[in-house]
Amino acid sequence: MLINEKIKQAVELLREFDLDCWLTFTRESAINGDPVLPFIAPGEVTWHSAFIVGRDGRKRAIVGKFDRKRIEETGAYDDVESYVTGFKEPLQRHLRELNPRTIAVNFSEGSEICDGLTHGMYLVLEKTLAEAGMAGRLVSAERIVSALRERKSAAEIADIKEAIRYTQEIFGLAAEFIAPGRSEREIADFILAEVESRGLALSWDAATCPAVFSGPDTAQAHYTPTGRFVERGHVLNMDFGVKVSGYCSDLQRTFYILDDGAEEAPPDVQRGFETIVESVDQARRAMKPGERGLDVDAAARRVVTGAGYEEFPHALGHQVGRFAHDGTALLGPAWEKYAQKPFRPLEPGMVFTIEPRLTVPGKGVVTIEEMVVVTESGASWLSRPQKELILIR
Amino acid sequence: MLINEKIKQAVELLREFDLDCWLTFTRESAINGDPVLPFIAPGEVTWHSAFIVGRDGRKRAIVGKFDRKRIEETGAYDDVESYVTGFKEPLQRHLRELNPRTIAVNFSEGSEICDGLTHGMYLVLEKTLAEAGMAGRLVSAERIVSALRERKSAAEIADIKEAIRYTQEIFGLAAEFIAPGRSEREIADFILAEVESRGLALSWDAATCPAVFSGPDTAQAHYTPTGRFVERGHVLNMDFGVKVSGYCSDLQRTFYILDDGAEEAPPDVQRGFETIVESVDQARRAMKPGERGLDVDAAARRVVTGAGYEEFPHALGHQVGRFAHDGTALLGPAWEKYAQKPFRPLEPGMVFTIEPRLTVPGKGVVTIEEMVVVTESGASWLSRPQKELILIR
Repeated sequence: MLINEKIKQAVELLREFDLDCWLTFTRESAINGDPVLPFIAPGEVTWHSAFIVGRDGRKRAIVGKFDRKRIEETGAYDDVESYVTGFKEPLQRHLRELNPRTIAVNFSEGSEICDGLTHGMYLVLEKTLAEAGMAGRLVSAERIVSALRERKSAAEIADIKEAIRYTQEIFGLAAEFIAPGRSEREIADFILAEVESRGLALSWDAATCPAVFSGPDTAQAHYTPTGRFVERGHVLNMDFGVKVSGYCSDLQRTFYILDDGAEEAPPDVQRGFETIVESVDQARRAMKPGERGLDVDAAARRVVTGAGYEEFPHALGHQVGRFAHDGTALLGPAWEKYAQKPFRPLEPGMVFTIEPRLTVPGKGVVTIEEMVVVTESGASWLSRPQKELILIR
Repeated sequence: MLINEKIKQAVELLREFDLDCWLTFTRESAINGDPVLPFIAPGEVTWHSAFIVGRDGRKRAIVGKFDRKRIEETGAYDDVESYVTGFKEPLQRHLRELNPRTIAVNFSEGSEICDGLTHGMYLVLEKTLAEAGMAGRLVSAERIVSALRERKSAAEIADIKEAIRYTQEIFGLAAEFIAPGRSEREIADFILAEVESRGLALSWDAATCPAVFSGPDTAQAHYTPTGRFVERGHVLNMDFGVKVSGYCSDLQRTFYILDDGAEEAPPDVQRGFETIVESVDQARRAMKPGERGLDVDAAARRVVTGAGYEEFPHALGHQVGRFAHDGTALLGPAWEKYAQKPFRPLEPGMVFTIEPRLTVPGKGVVTIEEMVVVTESGASWLSRPQKELILIR
């Protein structure tokens, strides 16, 4: 079970990072959920809830009365204490008993996935600790939360592979459906029906999953499919993913709509496509434990700019997990908005996308998004990489 | 359109509360969403995004490149600026131009619905402002966010009424389905099928929506329906709600399974039920603008304890909106966990549940949850109040 596995891993991580205690503090998680919650609790919690993992291996949960039974039934906690009127007294009592030098909590300036603690709850916690004579002990749990999400277990990888399998299967059906005169919206609806008939969830918001961009005059990314019709001589690309047991896929594929009587794409489209294939390949080859995402991004970016195209205005690739964008380490350039993420060394078990893009003037955007997992010595494909343009007759 | 309506309202609220500027600052909203986002942006945003409403009435948005088009198309913003590498320079420039004395941001110790800013993002914002010579200007936007959510427009009330209508309709069908020998799980699945056939979304997590509790030995609340079978002589209660255009209902109904040949519930069950009806009624009568939730809760609680039952271990009622639990003001006792919420005066347009409960020993839990809206002079029913036990033959 995910919760038991992750909480056990958390105890080991406290030792690895020399921290005394990891505390997740949240309330009304349906409103302001901490993204780490599915790793430590079954479903939502209503009132102020504290989940404490100590270096001594003891796991404590303090939750509101009606949330107690579900937490207890996980079997992951040694103590589950519930309250009716207030959480302060039990929280202070348990922390005094543990008396940690530092208390790692879920905030991070540079990594959104490790930043589940709201500022209001941080202030509440500071006051609660100060009252108990434990002021000034809060530190960031970024390393713990990152490792919990990034070092994927075999079970997590299996779910991601299954999500990729479904995604590739549906891309294959879409290739038969795409035709001149169909609109982006019709193609997206076809895909959504295939998702629904398989009982799958989407990897991100349905407004842009799938995203379908046809021809040279599109929003390029993060935009909802429009009524624009597929035309011959245009490039079409799609961004799409589904979830299996809560784990995501995130893939892009590029299609070309052949002119009447043509058997292949014109040289400019073909050259753009081959450049992207080469860029993806160089990226995968540059990946191994200890490398920085910064350098992997640069290797892929060089292929694109070296071929004379403008560089892509985004990171080369992100991690994937329970969210389509997951983890801290990023295959990205040292841009301000990415903070320290591109400098984090790769580790075995990290699952990344590789997704360079370029524009072929007058034709559309060529982009491929593959998924790979970092191994002990390199990176392996999780997706079946696109090596040929998908030609629509 | 919701966004235009709410942003216009925000300008008026800045004047009412004598604040210069309201800033919502978020990133990767699919991971750590600010609950206020649906009021100010269409869908999710990916990179650091700042939405600024100034007292001068000017609305500015600073977002990542690929999020720009969707924000622009709302028509709600005077300036939409996008960036590729970093948000700091444009954010500092816009704030210098506005030069607000105070900048209200979405954090709150006492109100989770106003606490969307993560602690990491608070730190990032503080540094960004300090660099621009604007340190120390951050204040809580609790009053703005509360008012935006609590003072419901006619359109918002209409959506809630429609959600209530569906919920009552499905409760009616469930009354025909419930029978001795059916399990809680079967009853829940029947309801879920009715929800799906109407294309509705649930008001909260499907694990506990609907919640079905049958007989004296249940978890009482916040627990998933079990394989326990409905039995004659038991009380059954359900907690259930659906969303219409993003707005929730949240209602509870109490059923009694008649003994063979019986025509009415036994006196203990009937007395418990009438006590709850009276408690709900007293609460509604105590509600009007300017009253505190604390006193409304006390009026209803007195009816239950005055009849000799143990008091309910939760607040009498919460607000409802885009979340089943919404708003800041609460019909609740002055318990630590509720902070200042029970002391907030009621205002016209607030939508509340009223949901006292009590236990009839050996029979089960009697609980009714109605919904009301605060008017200029009192509170009106939004739901059709349950005045009779629903008897199952």
